[in-house]
Amino acid sequence: MRAGGISIHCVDVATGQPARGMAVSLHRLSADEVLLAVGLIGANGQLDHPTVRGEGIIAGTYEVRFHIGDYLRAQGQFAGFLDVVPFRFVIEDIGPHLHLPMKFTPYGYAIFKGV
Amino acid sequence: MRAGGISIHCVDVATGQPARGMAVSLHRLSADEVLLAVGLIGANGQLDHPTVRGEGIIAGTYEVRFHIGDYLRAQGQFAGFLDVVPFRFVIEDIGPHLHLPMKFTPYGYAIFKGV
Amino acid sequence: MRAGGISIHCVDVATGQPARGMAVSLHRLSADEVLLAVGLIGANGQLDHPTVRGEGIIAGTYEVRFHIGDYLRAQGQFAGFLDVVPFRFVIEDIGPHLHLPMKFTPYGYAIFKGV
Amino acid sequence: MRAGGISIHCVDVATGQPARGMAVSLHRLSADEVLLAVGLIGANGQLDHPTVRGEGIIAGTYEVRFHIGDYLRAQGQFAGFLDVVPFRFVIEDIGPHLHLPMKFTPYGYAIFKGV
Repeated sequence: MRAGGISIHCVDVATGQPARGMAVSLHRLSADEVLLAVGLIGANGQLDHPTVRGEGIIAGTYEVRFHIGDYLRAQGQFAGFLDVVPFRFVIEDIGPHLHLPMKFTPYGYAIFKGV
Repeated sequence: MRAGGISIHCVDVATGQPARGMAVSLHRLSADEVLLAVGLIGANGQLDHPTVRGEGIIAGTYEVRFHIGDYLRAQGQFAGFLDVVPFRFVIEDIGPHLHLPMKFTPYGYAIFKGV
Repeated sequence: MRAGGISIHCVDVATGQPARGMAVSLHRLSADEVLLAVGLIGANGQLDHPTVRGEGIIAGTYEVRFHIGDYLRAQGQFAGFLDVVPFRFVIEDIGPHLHLPMKFTPYGYAIFKGV
Repeated sequence: MRAGGISIHCVDVATGQPARGMAVSLHRLSADEVLLAVGLIGANGQLDHPTVRGEGIIAGTYEVRFHIGDYLRAQGQFAGFLDVVPFRFVIEDIGPHLHLPMKFTPYGYAIFKGV
């Protein structure tokens, strides 16, 4: 079966801008943690990577790590509260595409599965 | 100047589904309120309308009205708290596209300008 | 029956601070709109008013108006997107206390009924 | 110096209820991870524990683990997306009280530092 893939989208809602340049990684958690993707968020707020098209996605537990602290420091914003932010989730059915839109400020964040 | 347009995107984050069938309208508020768009959210969670491509968008104050109460009743969810939900905002520069992703449950909602 | 009251709580999540000094009003909407409360958010992020203890609360449709634009301008933040933000809701049962925590940035906001 | 403490508050915004009975733990992350608190969310949506009054809080990196999957299963809600949800943050200055209000549904969550 072809996996629907995972798309990651980051917006800095304190500045209203996509989090261009933020490092993000995607891991499959298991006995042996597997790094599936690593990269920087682009000018469109998204991580461009083959996992978006489903490459390497099987059922399991995953974790995205958002390097918010580094991003905020580079932007001259306060980085004393959030550093590496993990988002851990389960994929039971690999068919549907999973959209993970993240909205953050230096003081918190929201992620709700999109469509 | 060609306007960037306004896209409206609704996800019911209590059920994880796009708010298919929810009525939405877009108004320009002024001495005389103008109805610019009205329609139902589609299966992709979006309102498909020429205003998405910028038709009729000039600088001004706007209001989107989300008919959440009707939608929740049709879904058999609790509709005793939210009915018609207004989101009022200003467009100063019509150039950039404005993305308005709305995430709601029967008990509240979040909207942060997307990209 | 003694009404549980409505408490309003505002935090600027772009700066991590309570929205001290933001003007807020509470209205009951009906054939004749009634202004129930108006005031400034205090240093604790809350509006201190008898409506918090239930005074004047009957079943009906209400609207809180958050003067976010004025607040942002006073703080030197961007105020070109949000001005007066309405939150419209229904109270069917006046018994329980209703907590309305609002989290905002210059680019959007979230309100979910608290407890 | 007396630490301000950390309060944890969980609301299920899909049902509009406090997450009564949800297991939550608080850890200080370091060379040796330390478990500071573990307990169940009470009827008021809060974890009642001496760490709320500052006991054991020193500067450092912390992680709260919300056992959302178990809670959702017990409630008969969908538990196939979120299981144990970590929230990792830094405390640089232990003086101010830190309020962590979490709003979740089976499909995502929001946490912004409160006041």
